[in-house]
Amino acid sequence: MTADIARPARDRIVYAAAQSVRERGVAATGLRGVVAEAEAPRGSLQHYFPGGKDQLVGEALRWSGNFAADQVRHYARELRRPTPGTLFAAMARQWRDEFSRRGFQRGCPLVAAAADVASTDPQLRDTVRTGFDGWLAAVRQELRRMGVPAGRADSLAVLMISALEGAIVLARINQDVRPLTTVVRQLRPLLDEAVTAR
Amino acid sequence: MTADIARPARDRIVYAAAQSVRERGVAATGLRGVVAEAEAPRGSLQHYFPGGKDQLVGEALRWSGNFAADQVRHYARELRRPTPGTLFAAMARQWRDEFSRRGFQRGCPLVAAAADVASTDPQLRDTVRTGFDGWLAAVRQELRRMGVPAGRADSLAVLMISALEGAIVLARINQDVRPLTTVVRQLRPLLDEAVTAR
Repeated sequence: MTADIARPARDRIVYAAAQSVRERGVAATGLRGVVAEAEAPRGSLQHYFPGGKDQLVGEALRWSGNFAADQVRHYARELRRPTPGTLFAAMARQWRDEFSRRGFQRGCPLVAAAADVASTDPQLRDTVRTGFDGWLAAVRQELRRMGVPAGRADSLAVLMISALEGAIVLARINQDVRPLTTVVRQLRPLLDEAVTAR
Repeated sequence: MTADIARPARDRIVYAAAQSVRERGVAATGLRGVVAEAEAPRGSLQHYFPGGKDQLVGEALRWSGNFAADQVRHYARELRRPTPGTLFAAMARQWRDEFSRRGFQRGCPLVAAAADVASTDPQLRDTVRTGFDGWLAAVRQELRRMGVPAGRADSLAVLMISALEGAIVLARINQDVRPLTTVVRQLRPLLDEAVTAR
């Protein structure tokens, strides 16, 4: 990764922290490495993040959750035939594209943080939960808009994000995007059938 | 956790390492903590695991993958009405029971390792892949036995394990087993419909 030095240093640091968490988890994320990756001046860390690593990782996770939710809304707007199945395909395609373009180095930051700090850091766990909540809410809202009944939309959002997260892990481990293609193909009919005739 | 001191020290150490990875990931797993948790003599680590942490974590992950695959075969044998849907429900129930009984401290060790060492340690990544492969193969084999056509069984095994892993993460983060119940309820019809009439 090369830092985009047109962005303010603070944003670059948050972004670099998110990428580090995606690659190696929270525990192994080092502040020095993040600042170097962000091409930010040494002192900027203390300046922008007086709360240290907890504050920085918390912001990185919040940024990641918002990004995921924004992407869902963006896909729903851009899809030619917006259905639950095509939305899910678009969410998976983002990961397929990322893996194909940049390799399998980076997974989902929310899963990475869940894996290594969910049990040891209640505050970061809350941040991860908020990230998932926002993402789930965005999926739910788009499903509702596509004609999925409310209760079903809740459940299908959980299913979509669960299946996507698991497939991301399998794809990284196998260095192969096929698990992503597989879950999309298998879930698509079920998702599209959830739209009630209007 | 209290170590079961009737088991040989070596097994207790591997088990304790697996539990530590489940709780805090590979990076934050310390050898000293593992030995203490296993109630094993200090020197036993060097004696049994001359390859150090890499060897120990590798064995813990292999043990975990085998355990998951064995459980799948066990459930398939014990189910009164073995169908893809009831098998998936049994796999999820294991996690629901664990979370209800012991709290949400521990997730899946394969996902934890994927999150923090998939990109930084190719050898451990291979071990995680082997773990998932054995687990997927066990699911696939049981689905075949239940009458799911071969190609479909491959895909559904990927879907089942992906959805289960994602739901485990959501359950831990929310400290609530509902994501597990949700994915089971949503996937069950799809899974059972994959059995061809015989």
